[in-house]
This record gives sequence, C-alpha cells and structure tokens, in this order.
Amino acid sequence: MSPATLHVVGVGPGDPELLTLKAARVIEQAAVVAYFCRHDRPGHARTIAAAHVSEGQRELRFAYPFTTERTVQDPTYQPDMSAFYDECAAHIHGELHEGRDVALLCEGDPFLYGSAMYLFDRLHREVPCAVVPGVTGMGGCWAQAGQPMVHGDDVLCVLPATMPEPELAAWLERADAAVVMKLGSNLPKLREALATAGRADEAIYVERGTQPDARVMKLSEKEGAAPYFALALVPGRKDVR
Amino acid sequence: MSPATLHVVGVGPGDPELLTLKAARVIEQAAVVAYFCRHDRPGHARTIAAAHVSEGQRELRFAYPFTTERTVQDPTYQPDMSAFYDECAAHIHGELHEGRDVALLCEGDPFLYGSAMYLFDRLHREVPCAVVPGVTGMGGCWAQAGQPMVHGDDVLCVLPATMPEPELAAWLERADAAVVMKLGSNLPKLREALATAGRADEAIYVERGTQPDARVMKLSEKEGAAPYFALALVPGRKDVR
Repeated sequence: MSPATLHVVGVGPGDPELLTLKAARVIEQAAVVAYFCRHDRPGHARTIAAAHVSEGQRELRFAYPFTTERTVQDPTYQPDMSAFYDECAAHIHGELHEGRDVALLCEGDPFLYGSAMYLFDRLHREVPCAVVPGVTGMGGCWAQAGQPMVHGDDVLCVLPATMPEPELAAWLERADAAVVMKLGSNLPKLREALATAGRADEAIYVERGTQPDARVMKLSEKEGAAPYFALALVPGRKDVR
Repeated sequence: MSPATLHVVGVGPGDPELLTLKAARVIEQAAVVAYFCRHDRPGHARTIAAAHVSEGQRELRFAYPFTTERTVQDPTYQPDMSAFYDECAAHIHGELHEGRDVALLCEGDPFLYGSAMYLFDRLHREVPCAVVPGVTGMGGCWAQAGQPMVHGDDVLCVLPATMPEPELAAWLERADAAVVMKLGSNLPKLREALATAGRADEAIYVERGTQPDARVMKLSEKEGAAPYFALALVPGRKDVR
C-alpha cells in the first residue's frame, strides 16, 4: 500500500477567519490532525483551527520537551530537540503508512520559520507531501497596524532580534524596510540597534496581531517587557506616491 | 452621513482557494468591488476572486494608463501614475461618501509591494479603512516549490532585481535566504549577481506559483526569458536539524 499524504498547513497569524479556504478544507478532510504545543498549553495552531477539527478526527499532539527552560546555547538543546523531531516524524510516518492523511497545523506560513519545516525536512523524500501556504505572522501584524511596508523597489529584511547588536544595527541601516522578530528579552538590544541606525522613531511595536487582544504602538512608547512573539515593524520609504 | 469603509483585501498568490475566509466574506458583503488591471486584461485579482463577486455588486475597474510601455525612468511615469492614483482614490472616496463599502482587491498581500498602498496612503486619514492580509506571492511560490526558506535565526531579504548588479550581489552574499522579485529583463543580471555571490547553484526559479500552469526549476536550468512576476528563491541554511 502506498502511503497517504502529509499536508503541511499554514493556519495564519491568529484570527481564525484568516485561514485560507484551502486550509479549512484540507484540515476538515484529513483523518489525522497534528500540531505542536507547549506541554502545559493547548497549542496555538490547534486553537486557531478549532472550527475545522471534528470529534471523528485522530489528533497527534506534539508537546515540546522544553521551550524557554533551556537556551539554544545549552549543549543539550540541539540533540534533544532533534530527537523530539525524529519522534514526531516517526509518528506521522506511521499514520501515513496506515493510509491516513495527516494535516500538520502551523501558525503563520509553514516555510517561514517554525517547527513544521523540521518534520517536512525529515519526511519529504519518503512520503507524498503537500504544502498549503498561510498568511504570515508579520503580515497579520502590519495589517493590524495599518502600516504599508514596502513600495516600488524597496528592500525588505526579516531579522531575528537574537543576533548581536552591531550586526542588527548594520542590517537596520542597510534595509529600506525591516521586520524584527523574536523580541522578548532582546527588546533593549533592539532599541539600542535602532538608535545606532538612526531609526528609533520609525519602529512600530505589534503584539498578537489580528487577535482580539492585539496591541500596536510606537516602539519608543512601549514600556515593560515584550513577549517572544512580538514584532517590530520598520516601514520602507514613504515618499513614493 | 459618515462614510462607509474601504476594505483593502489581499486575495493571495493565484489559487482561488488561497483566499482567506475573511477575504471571501468581506468581498461578498461589499456593495462595491474595485481592482487594478491592464487596459487589455480582466485583472488578475478580479479573476482570483471571481467566485465571490456577484451580479448585484458595482465594480470599479481601474485600468493602468500604461504598464510596460514606459519605464520608471521616463520623466512622465511618476506624475502620470500619481494622477491616475489620485483619480482612483477620488472614485473610491465618492462611493464611500454615498454609504457604500468598497472592497479593493489586491494580489498577494496588500502591504507587501503592489498598487493598493498608493490608494491606502491617499485615503486612510479621511475614511475608515480596514486591511485583510493575504498569502503573499512569494509564499505561494515557496509552497509550490516545496522549499522551506528560513529556519531558526536566518535572515531573509526580499530583493527587487531592478537594482544594479554589484548591489544585488552584495545583498545575496550577506543574506542567509533571499527572494528576488521582478525578474523579467533583469534575469541575466541576477544570474551574474548570484555567480558573484557564489550562490548560482542554490537558486530556484518559480513562475505562476499556485496556479495550474506553475513552473518550478533550478534557476541554472531555466532557459529563455522570464515574465516580470517570476521569482527566484535562495533558501537559507540547510544544516539545521
């Protein structure tokens, strides 16, 4: 028997109405729905897609063995996380070989950061895979902010705030427009980098874009800590008419 | 009477099933559906959204006064295009002030390149505006190619191929991952820039991602001319497990 298909499905930035028609159909038709989550949480992708998952469907809940408890620099991080992904891939592989299609739910878009790629990388040579692109988290944030990002021939850079400050400042200086991700504890460093690049006044802070509790403000007016998934938007040129 | 609302609606990369549930609803509920097109074509955004536009809806068809007939360097390009956008904005303004909601259809996402921003920029201080983000053209292309783009802390750069070759080469050298847009007549220059950056073998060529006549191949194997809207994908690091 030939294996069934793994559908890697983007569920968008948070508003359940921002699923695509295709994502909704593929999730509803799959025998098995799989998703990542923290061990103590229901899983954000699963919550977003809730209206399309029914009782008759089998669910594979992949709870990360750790999230913020270990840093990426911890020597056990990489091997333990890799073993976890191996195990998730084996689970999916088993379902597919029993003839059951699997919909793997992904926040945002499956191929723009995110864990789904680690499973796709492990499985795509062995089983049929299909990818349903989704509205990205950053797209949800700039829509929430009502902030056009790039006109004409602007260059857009997507920058994880995890890099060293001088490097981040250099990128912010070079780019016409930038999205800075993974703020969390990197927020003070980002403020410094924006100041170095002379762009501190341009940055917009967005938290939970497209969700009911979304927050949008000038980054310079943001006080206190930022969650890991908050973004900063630095729009491109504004003189284009 | 207070004006109705302008909904700026992303319709995604081409597959009509990649509209979001929200885009479908907003288009169906709007009294007026507006879109850009070439004077001799039906308009790609309108075609993508066709299933959600009905006979009772008023349509505003904004035909560009010129597209490839003039280059951006032509001194008449900017003022004539700007006057055209002024006129489109005035049309929409009129509809809104007669109490009719307008859905302005945009290919891909409304705030990532594209003409809708020029109307949003002209109108958002005067009338209520709402933005429905969409799956981007590049997201449709990397899903079509089955190509994960950015893992972990990779930097992604979105680069118009219109810039000079040395500049393009420098961006391609610096970026972990890149999307190069607006290929068309810039394809030979892109090949040169990729060679300079030592990344000629990594680039993937994608044309009409998510559409029935989509084409995906290694850029090094692509022969002949490329349409303006074709993309090149240069994926990020592959050693992440």
